[in-house]
Amino acid sequence: GAHAQSSVTIYGTVDAGVSKTTGTTAQIGKRDNNKLGFRGVEDLGSGLKALFQLEIRYEPDTGTIESTSGANSRPLFQGQSRVGLQGDFGTVRLGRGLTPFQETSTAFEPWSGVPAVAGYQTNLQVAGYTSDPLAPPGTSGNRFSNAVWYNTPVINGFQLNVAVGAKEALGNTVAIVGRGTTLAPQYGVNALPSANPWGASATYTLNQFAAYAAYERNAIETKLWSVGASYKPMPALKLMATYQKQDMDHTVLPNAANHETDAWIIGANYTMGPGKLLLGYGVKTPDRILKTKQASIGYEYNISTRTYIYFDLSNKKTPLPATTATTNDSTVNHYSVGIHHNF
Amino acid sequence: GAHAQSSVTIYGTVDAGVSKTTGTTAQIGKRDNNKLGFRGVEDLGSGLKALFQLEIRYEPDTGTIESTSGANSRPLFQGQSRVGLQGDFGTVRLGRGLTPFQETSTAFEPWSGVPAVAGYQTNLQVAGYTSDPLAPPGTSGNRFSNAVWYNTPVINGFQLNVAVGAKEALGNTVAIVGRGTTLAPQYGVNALPSANPWGASATYTLNQFAAYAAYERNAIETKLWSVGASYKPMPALKLMATYQKQDMDHTVLPNAANHETDAWIIGANYTMGPGKLLLGYGVKTPDRILKTKQASIGYEYNISTRTYIYFDLSNKKTPLPATTATTNDSTVNHYSVGIHHNF
Amino acid sequence: GAHAQSSVTIYGTVDAGVSKTTGTTAQIGKRDNNKLGFRGVEDLGSGLKALFQLEIRYEPDTGTIESTSGANSRPLFQGQSRVGLQGDFGTVRLGRGLTPFQETSTAFEPWSGVPAVAGYQTNLQVAGYTSDPLAPPGTSGNRFSNAVWYNTPVINGFQLNVAVGAKEALGNTVAIVGRGTTLAPQYGVNALPSANPWGASATYTLNQFAAYAAYERNAIETKLWSVGASYKPMPALKLMATYQKQDMDHTVLPNAANHETDAWIIGANYTMGPGKLLLGYGVKTPDRILKTKQASIGYEYNISTRTYIYFDLSNKKTPLPATTATTNDSTVNHYSVGIHHNF
Repeated sequence: GAHAQSSVTIYGTVDAGVSKTTGTTAQIGKRDNNKLGFRGVEDLGSGLKALFQLEIRYEPDTGTIESTSGANSRPLFQGQSRVGLQGDFGTVRLGRGLTPFQETSTAFEPWSGVPAVAGYQTNLQVAGYTSDPLAPPGTSGNRFSNAVWYNTPVINGFQLNVAVGAKEALGNTVAIVGRGTTLAPQYGVNALPSANPWGASATYTLNQFAAYAAYERNAIETKLWSVGASYKPMPALKLMATYQKQDMDHTVLPNAANHETDAWIIGANYTMGPGKLLLGYGVKTPDRILKTKQASIGYEYNISTRTYIYFDLSNKKTPLPATTATTNDSTVNHYSVGIHHNF
Repeated sequence: GAHAQSSVTIYGTVDAGVSKTTGTTAQIGKRDNNKLGFRGVEDLGSGLKALFQLEIRYEPDTGTIESTSGANSRPLFQGQSRVGLQGDFGTVRLGRGLTPFQETSTAFEPWSGVPAVAGYQTNLQVAGYTSDPLAPPGTSGNRFSNAVWYNTPVINGFQLNVAVGAKEALGNTVAIVGRGTTLAPQYGVNALPSANPWGASATYTLNQFAAYAAYERNAIETKLWSVGASYKPMPALKLMATYQKQDMDHTVLPNAANHETDAWIIGANYTMGPGKLLLGYGVKTPDRILKTKQASIGYEYNISTRTYIYFDLSNKKTPLPATTATTNDSTVNHYSVGIHHNF
Repeated sequence: GAHAQSSVTIYGTVDAGVSKTTGTTAQIGKRDNNKLGFRGVEDLGSGLKALFQLEIRYEPDTGTIESTSGANSRPLFQGQSRVGLQGDFGTVRLGRGLTPFQETSTAFEPWSGVPAVAGYQTNLQVAGYTSDPLAPPGTSGNRFSNAVWYNTPVINGFQLNVAVGAKEALGNTVAIVGRGTTLAPQYGVNALPSANPWGASATYTLNQFAAYAAYERNAIETKLWSVGASYKPMPALKLMATYQKQDMDHTVLPNAANHETDAWIIGANYTMGPGKLLLGYGVKTPDRILKTKQASIGYEYNISTRTYIYFDLSNKKTPLPATTATTNDSTVNHYSVGIHHNF
């Protein structure tokens, strides 16, 4: 490696704030993912480029690597680790990264896909679906490991993205019972995928209008369909809507209550000078009857091109199961204020 | 993150040497903390700046992340992970970092707070106190996670620093029995703080003279008071002294032997051309009767502005408990030689 | 650390490809080690320099830190973490890094020491020997931790490299029974080395000819001898051969079948414009009777100075133990294609 440093760009995000959710004390936490990344582009001539990107994800309040449950099993480069080639034919990459659906759909979500409690990406936008169910606990559920990506060039506003994963075991430590039994689960510990996970998304952009359609099937053959569109009636205003449906027929009987989950979200972004107003409303129906409903409002105030202050307010109603005696929904309010800095 | 790399500074320390302690074989180890850090400052105009800092801590002899006990629970950014704003009003930061007492007191310790065996910071300077008793094993005990910091500007030589932590569980894996019982410990595994941890320090500098006073209360309500001063009778000589007292009345009965620990340290730094002589003597009294005594001498020789060679020699007497038949103290000598490089 | 960033160079490798081995499905994986490193040189004047190097090793297909078995015990800086001084006297470094034998022998191996399945370094070139048998699972077996290195300057084409490790426990989690019993293993869990691990290599270069001799003894007193040579009859062609012998007499009875392992490898590299052809054949005899045989062919095509595409093909025959009824060897074919990018 006697190569000049100029080929590596370090980039990242630090986002930290104070938040308060009904029933808990005030917490120091984040609204966006926190990243420390390394990436580079090498010009190979004739329009051909070699690319790489490595992205650490961490929690700014404790300094740990990002993890949602298990202690130590998440990757160092949770964000992505990919290498590839780009040319007139498009882009081919190998490694670990966001699936086409997960990457495409963030542009149609009113919080731009950040995992804010007030946002919709983590819970509603994916209709409860996870792209990586056989990964160890704590690993991001929005990514494929051991995969190949192909993005076409943009042709007349149209682009196609495809990713296919290998049938490699990734070390899930909790068995997935599925249609099996506790003693003979459908997917045991460190299970091999029963099929190659894969996904594709198509996006189309025409002036103020954009739309996408996406499909994905994960390593345990859960399927997801999603469509969305956005429209800008004036430059400062962006309206958006998405619909997605998760089909678990490979692991759950088709007549089971949780066989299908669908979700829809509508939202708007309105830019006012250095400020941006975010509005969203969404509904998820995990059991085809009871609905989770979320209404959110947010405000981002840019104090520079790389730094903004944010305020979020959100109300979420989660229905109690029909078998529960009490008839009230569980309602949670969430407030959040903080600072978001790109470097 | 399409931002120029110029906004990120990489910095760090590599310190490795050979040491020998009474009763053990020669070891390869460190004298200072080893760091690999990423930090940046963004000028927001009108004297306002956005700041961030992320700091990995590692062991150069084995290449592992720094840890004093547990295997895998320490944060990647053990050193610090903070983001904030700086302006005429001072500096506000959120995240994880040194507490005001821990940061302030290093300037009054003859080894400048490095965790050298010959130094006083780790054991005597903190009077056995830990800032983060509910963290997982291996996590630094000098820091708050989930906290907010405020540093005033320096006004007429005077500065105040305050930090307050959230009441969030951090994952201690060993219960703290305290005034409870083994079956019902005062702080169980993954305990919530019983109060917000917080701390403050005030420093005053006037010509050759400087002084501080600090107070801190951790998540299990152990309290620490500390005062210190330094004086430079001539530019090459710095004399210093500190006193600190730990009060464990929330977890230990006030009449218990170990209810209070106090410690005092005196020291001097003398600069001779590229060399610096370090001298220190300190006493810690963990049980109000028996005293731990440490005398140390060190020498740092600068071979450049960023690199020095060091030699340390230290003698430490730890008293045996009064109930022990033998009357001799346990005496340990320590020798250390190595290289310290900043980048 | 208020030091200019210019003192740190970031470098690394991303290598990802698709491979297929007899009896398994196609996998996304690597052929070379994947690195993300930080290093610097400080000019101290008079020809003296301070050096440091920290090197993360990771898996690009999953984004995890590199590990061959255990989950979490590998170092963050698996590749190396060293600091030292360089001058007319040579180079002295402390920390963790490749042993002299492991570093020297890669220049005489037809795949340049990359851990490709088609290459010889990992299995044959080291004759089954590991430099670090008392490290936790997952740690690289080619390195010493807690060690000091000394490289002489090159004098008349001759250079000597020596490394000595401290007798420090490193945390092996599996006991080594050796000449002991399961209940009283020769090296228990977290065992201390029974002797200082050390190694030395001597290299000699004269025009188109180069040769080395190396010796190493690890922490459980297994010994390795190795010699090798290379010759370039014309600039585009490099021929090479090595021989190595592992002696386990400290942990295995001298008349045991596996007391000694020897291995030899011959190979060639032939450069054709932007392409390079790799050829190798090697034999390892772990029990002094049955032979593991490997024949490999590879091709690297440079699409730039920093990026190449590779193709590997390899056939490996592993003999079944003599006590097995069947008489056929186990034969495995391996195909690999991918991209290798330096930054």
